[in-house]
Amino acid sequence: MSVDVVERFRALWRSLEKIGRDEETGGYRRHGWNGADLECREWFAEEAADRDLELRVDGNGNLFAWWGDGDDAVLTGSHLDSVPDGGGYDGPLGVVSALVAVDLLRERGHTPRRPIVVATFAEEEGSRFGLACLGSRLLTGAVDTRRALALTDREGVTLARAIAATGGDPAEVGPDPDLVARFGCFVELHVEQGRALVDLDAAVGVASAIWPHGRWRFDFRGEANHAGTTRMADRHDPMLTFAFTVLAANKEARLSGAHATMGRVHVSPNATNAVPGQVTAWLDARAAEQSTLDQLIGSVTAKATERATRDGTAVAVTAESVTAVVEFDAALRDRLATALGGVPVLPTGAGHDAGVLSAVMPTAMLFVRNPTGVSHAPGEHATDEDCAAGIEALAATLEELACR
Amino acid sequence: MSVDVVERFRALWRSLEKIGRDEETGGYRRHGWNGADLECREWFAEEAADRDLELRVDGNGNLFAWWGDGDDAVLTGSHLDSVPDGGGYDGPLGVVSALVAVDLLRERGHTPRRPIVVATFAEEEGSRFGLACLGSRLLTGAVDTRRALALTDREGVTLARAIAATGGDPAEVGPDPDLVARFGCFVELHVEQGRALVDLDAAVGVASAIWPHGRWRFDFRGEANHAGTTRMADRHDPMLTFAFTVLAANKEARLSGAHATMGRVHVSPNATNAVPGQVTAWLDARAAEQSTLDQLIGSVTAKATERATRDGTAVAVTAESVTAVVEFDAALRDRLATALGGVPVLPTGAGHDAGVLSAVMPTAMLFVRNPTGVSHAPGEHATDEDCAAGIEALAATLEELACR
Repeated sequence: MSVDVVERFRALWRSLEKIGRDEETGGYRRHGWNGADLECREWFAEEAADRDLELRVDGNGNLFAWWGDGDDAVLTGSHLDSVPDGGGYDGPLGVVSALVAVDLLRERGHTPRRPIVVATFAEEEGSRFGLACLGSRLLTGAVDTRRALALTDREGVTLARAIAATGGDPAEVGPDPDLVARFGCFVELHVEQGRALVDLDAAVGVASAIWPHGRWRFDFRGEANHAGTTRMADRHDPMLTFAFTVLAANKEARLSGAHATMGRVHVSPNATNAVPGQVTAWLDARAAEQSTLDQLIGSVTAKATERATRDGTAVAVTAESVTAVVEFDAALRDRLATALGGVPVLPTGAGHDAGVLSAVMPTAMLFVRNPTGVSHAPGEHATDEDCAAGIEALAATLEELACR
Repeated sequence: MSVDVVERFRALWRSLEKIGRDEETGGYRRHGWNGADLECREWFAEEAADRDLELRVDGNGNLFAWWGDGDDAVLTGSHLDSVPDGGGYDGPLGVVSALVAVDLLRERGHTPRRPIVVATFAEEEGSRFGLACLGSRLLTGAVDTRRALALTDREGVTLARAIAATGGDPAEVGPDPDLVARFGCFVELHVEQGRALVDLDAAVGVASAIWPHGRWRFDFRGEANHAGTTRMADRHDPMLTFAFTVLAANKEARLSGAHATMGRVHVSPNATNAVPGQVTAWLDARAAEQSTLDQLIGSVTAKATERATRDGTAVAVTAESVTAVVEFDAALRDRLATALGGVPVLPTGAGHDAGVLSAVMPTAMLFVRNPTGVSHAPGEHATDEDCAAGIEALAATLEELACR
């Protein structure tokens, strides 16, 4: 690859990387409609203007920069928001790569016969309103508009209020089938979140599928009491049931080749000298097969319930969101893998806007190697050279799809 | 006991019980120098004035209502603050009982030959600034004044700022040996925090000792990562090490007859779809013998460290506060138990201002039966009849100590 692409990547990356980064942790705090997120959108609008791409904003906070007009457009891009203290690559790499790929195609004298559209989707991580891929779900009607507008952030602010407060119109929120109908396919480039490409010694890969996955809320109820004076035998301590469940989920996932995480917990009253009265925790679980996932959830629920009986507590499990397997369009996947010289084809455990859009148009994903596999954390990374390889692959993909 | 005492108790109790109570949880949120706490102090000042008791406030937020003047005073009372969402009896029962006991002594024609002083001590629970018995520790010099003034609450407000903001003078904070020297002994009445008196079928008991106890902070460090894509084998998940430690502490405490609780935890980033990078939790541990407590902490630390090796995490244990055993004054204890007709004598796992004051004067405690044993939670309770029995016992105690 040419040094030029590395330099171009670096320059554009640098213009974005400071927005929303916490100086202490090095992690990003770009969450839907917060200050950093709005700054990212400003940045995107300026980059689109610099390239004479026509910017169109839908009612859901998704931004689209059009190169060319007409229908059957090739859609690319990703998102600019992050998880709390997340890394800089998850999302932004797809947007930056798409903009540089457009530059490369132009320099190389290509004129697309189908429009090429670079998108940034809103609140992909669901970090603020708790629903991942919020922007693409609203656009495609995969979530009920009224339900979405009533979602609240941790401060109790509704999506409707957040949109109104930042100059948007809640009445404009919702599906836009006319816009969706103008797109012929979607290709999302994304940093790999894992180390499969490291093991395969490849800079770039193509996605086969997104594992079925979901979030389950576990409410453990006990009885708050004095930590110093309550006899161990008299306690109904939900922290014990929670702790047992954490270890059970880990063990079950290891045994079945699935992924299980309990990374979020709220304790009440959360005081050093009080046995808690209530612990609420979320289980994030994913597996290659739906049956494995179902078995995992069933087994963890059974073990938690059994332990609750021993602890004198109660546990209630609520499925908050469950997403079935997404098999990406086979024809598109094979066409890209071939066009890119036979790069590896691999599944992922992470949800993406591509997963949502695959319900309404042929969709593909490209992954860029992540040397440590770390993601959703400040250590998330890809080398500049691999990012340039990703840009070249995306440019080749857009050329294949839009310029031939 | 006379119905009159029950009625008197109820009337005074009713005038206090609404202050700082959360309507949703039914729990109290009276924390040092917050609005509810200041309202409680106002209430106390009015009750003292109604009884012609001379109110004196020290520099540490402790209030003293004097009946009579001179030295060798008999000090009684307790505190009015609560743990977050705590019960109404822990603290206030001792203050209300002391005020009613003064009324009874007066009605019965007693004139104390030593002053009787009713006290409320500041921030006994340490709920705001993290150090239990803050007011009595400052008064007696059991905590360094400068260290105390720099303590911060969860919003980062220092004790110095909180005192200044509520009309106090941080320069006045600190030990007051002249005041302490005027007290001959201290008797604190308190709701029992456990069910020992239920089992003994007694409304009132006398304390023998406070178990050695302390708080240890466990910092579990791992590596934040993506919950969906990070292979289980590649994780460094501190939530696992924490969960194992919770269960280990519980098991060790049960085996050794000690009390161990991990009721407070902070997770970073605490997101559903992220393996945590850091978990901080506090272990509250207490035992009848110092050696048992030492062994418990050593064993839990060893098990946590061993598990951290398996999880690829690290754990650091910091003793935040450790209090040695308090043996209450044996002569005073026996004198009261006899004067009260041979009531049970029992130890407690809870720290109290009486434990702090026992270092500088003969100190005793009376406990009032708690039918459920629940404490530090909204269900904390004592029947009106048992409260009246406690008041009669305290009146008899004050008569014994101050009027003979």
